[in-house]
Amino acid sequence: VANAADFALLHRRGDPLFLPNAWDYASAAILAGAGYRAIGTTSLGVAASVGKRDASGETRHETLALVRLLTGLPVMLTVDIESGFSDNPSEVAEYADMIERAGAVGVNLEDGRGDGTLAPLELHRAKVQAVKSRCRELFVNARTDTYWLGSAGHSPLDETLLRCNEYVEAGADGVFVPGALDIGAVAAISSQVDAPLNVLYLPGTHTFNELAGAGAARVSTGSLLFRSTLRAVLETASRAQNQGLPSDPGPSYREVQASLGSRL
Amino acid sequence: VANAADFALLHRRGDPLFLPNAWDYASAAILAGAGYRAIGTTSLGVAASVGKRDASGETRHETLALVRLLTGLPVMLTVDIESGFSDNPSEVAEYADMIERAGAVGVNLEDGRGDGTLAPLELHRAKVQAVKSRCRELFVNARTDTYWLGSAGHSPLDETLLRCNEYVEAGADGVFVPGALDIGAVAAISSQVDAPLNVLYLPGTHTFNELAGAGAARVSTGSLLFRSTLRAVLETASRAQNQGLPSDPGPSYREVQASLGSRL
Repeated sequence: VANAADFALLHRRGDPLFLPNAWDYASAAILAGAGYRAIGTTSLGVAASVGKRDASGETRHETLALVRLLTGLPVMLTVDIESGFSDNPSEVAEYADMIERAGAVGVNLEDGRGDGTLAPLELHRAKVQAVKSRCRELFVNARTDTYWLGSAGHSPLDETLLRCNEYVEAGADGVFVPGALDIGAVAAISSQVDAPLNVLYLPGTHTFNELAGAGAARVSTGSLLFRSTLRAVLETASRAQNQGLPSDPGPSYREVQASLGSRL
Repeated sequence: VANAADFALLHRRGDPLFLPNAWDYASAAILAGAGYRAIGTTSLGVAASVGKRDASGETRHETLALVRLLTGLPVMLTVDIESGFSDNPSEVAEYADMIERAGAVGVNLEDGRGDGTLAPLELHRAKVQAVKSRCRELFVNARTDTYWLGSAGHSPLDETLLRCNEYVEAGADGVFVPGALDIGAVAAISSQVDAPLNVLYLPGTHTFNELAGAGAARVSTGSLLFRSTLRAVLETASRAQNQGLPSDPGPSYREVQASLGSRL
């Protein structure tokens, strides 16, 4: 059984782990079946699947239920737990412990809040520390939303470096800086923070290879795959009704039944 | 509020309702947002989303929960309830009643079984009758799997005509014959059964317009949209890691949050 140490080894500066993100059993199973060794979850997908808003702390139950559902898939799982669904560090640690015991090898823990502000550095640092004290084997990826939400006072890069280094000092195993970073910022963070750097793949900006060359150790897809399925739904429906589809755009019914319905 | 009578009016022989099928809140909401007046559900998608097998009677709870989740979307909903999750007609009627009270305007009730056999005609007829006795306002679409599962003794067309006419006599508001019917069979069933005929859109075979011309009154997509999303997941992930995506293939994060996260 793969554990957090195996997962940590997949993070190589300059030769990053490509991490696709799932939101339900079907998306996770199809990615596992395609050979990805590790997958993440996307809180947007988990929330939207059940009609809830992302980053609003509403999917505590659904997130844990998803991890339990994915237990047994031959893939390492790291889980987007938003801001830990609490501002009480010991409650966050308790939740992370349940996520770990349900079978995950890692979590993403973010300092962005649903109201569009950054949590105080000290609070997020305390959460990271509490989770690592309780779950020593869990790969804790500390995410800072400085590039998404702004960085009162400092430049985004300075605030990012400050926060990342504090989170690593508190025990974080990796740092995650989502948003549209220029390639110089990726290089600066990856060289000035002593932990693997995770960045987001954003279509139309830097390629995976460019992010690798700048020192990224993990490149994840966030909500990209989930959002691409929404386009697929509308396009496939429109083409079925209008010009017609020359061939089936997905795996067959039998293939889906065989590969995705085999959990029970 | 739209009801089953409004839904029935959408079924016009030769000018069919195009009915796309959803499996979770996100897929239903994106279709409702695109202007479809009615949507169905796909039991394959509902099952695979949670790692269960389709047509095995395992998603009784998930199917009802999905209908409750979709209440409030501005779209008429008809629900794939497989074979009613029971071979006791009064239990099937009780379940259909819960589905109706949760907000659906219709159900699909199938005579195919998880073991690959057709239920006895008399049993399925009794289920249709029980549901219509209890839920007079519900649009009951009686599905026969003669073309998928074979038709011991008779030709598939003869067995289909026999079953469809019996189901209509028992009160069915429409009949659904999935599978690869030739266009002559569509024409024969639509003219020899006194109820709207629903057929499945199958890529690479007849177009929507051809099915319309043969007399179909509803053309649905079954598991097609769901299966197309599985392809989208793998293709988007592969392109993100390899050649790169020139632009984002889906609605933006903000668009998804605004349109799909607004239920609560």
